[in-house]
Amino acid sequence: MDSNILPVELEKAYRLVTHGPTVLVSASHGGVVDVMAAAWCCALDFAPPKLTVVLDKITRTRELVERSGRFVIQVPNLAQLALVNGVGNNSLHDNPDKLQQHGVELFSVGDNNLPLVAGCSAWLACELVSEPHNQQSYDLFIGEVTAAWADQRIFRQGHWLFEQADARWKSLHHVAGGHYYAIGDAVES
Amino acid sequence: MDSNILPVELEKAYRLVTHGPTVLVSASHGGVVDVMAAAWCCALDFAPPKLTVVLDKITRTRELVERSGRFVIQVPNLAQLALVNGVGNNSLHDNPDKLQQHGVELFSVGDNNLPLVAGCSAWLACELVSEPHNQQSYDLFIGEVTAAWADQRIFRQGHWLFEQADARWKSLHHVAGGHYYAIGDAVES
Repeated sequence: MDSNILPVELEKAYRLVTHGPTVLVSASHGGVVDVMAAAWCCALDFAPPKLTVVLDKITRTRELVERSGRFVIQVPNLAQLALVNGVGNNSLHDNPDKLQQHGVELFSVGDNNLPLVAGCSAWLACELVSEPHNQQSYDLFIGEVTAAWADQRIFRQGHWLFEQADARWKSLHHVAGGHYYAIGDAVES
Repeated sequence: MDSNILPVELEKAYRLVTHGPTVLVSASHGGVVDVMAAAWCCALDFAPPKLTVVLDKITRTRELVERSGRFVIQVPNLAQLALVNGVGNNSLHDNPDKLQQHGVELFSVGDNNLPLVAGCSAWLACELVSEPHNQQSYDLFIGEVTAAWADQRIFRQGHWLFEQADARWKSLHHVAGGHYYAIGDAVES
């Protein structure tokens, strides 16, 4: 593992997604791995940290989440814009080479065997909190964050470093149809 | 109503929150009005548009949402930073003058009598989709968006105009403890 990737304390894991970035969702089951983009991911609780993510029924990733009961939410960055848009507009159902075509490299941490996408800013390993009614009626999935990591060049000691890091590390905030905003300047109240 | 405030087509209402801004939640019941800040609000569906928002049990706003079955999600902007942080760190339970102290001015549209916060960039009128288990177990509330409006100086014909508008209109993205990022530059994939 890249020595820049450090664990994030679980009580600060909510900070990785509270500012509303578009994320990548990855999961694996039975030797199949998929990665998708999701703009609709949101923190849900502090301790234990939980989050929600909307996974459409047409996605292969959703099937892998349901079968394995585990997934990874990762916060990608501006340097990964083409990758994010690529995996977000391409289904593993239609294109078995999707991950390779969009330059997705995977790694894992320890022996948990979860598929983490290389080059992201942060990663949250989640266990699915099974809520069949939410999943079926709303495509709404709840995950409990069991471990988190971040690249220390952009998130360190519980804080994002957007104001001092190179622009390539900025988080992406999708609006619609491949149109994103990068995160901007820090403001304090 | 300010002539800059125009209706947003319901099928494009999801674009008002997909980029992950911190929002204001307002509700009223029995003559009581409250407004709170919420970083954990997320689009849930396109048509009919739905969204989720996390409302802690300690907030008075939550009580008003539960009793009235209606609420407004509004997207505030950089010019309202002090207001957003003020209503987010102050409870109507403790401070009956909360709204006045933080400079909140309210208006309504038509005869629906919902409390909209003046000066915001966009407003989404929501009907609570009652899900008692989610509300009790996760503080998670689902709203169906029944009408939406935006100030045409920052959102027009289905598109945010952050790249051309004055910085005062930028959306706010809270991280923790009064530390926010403003939205940044547009990027296209």
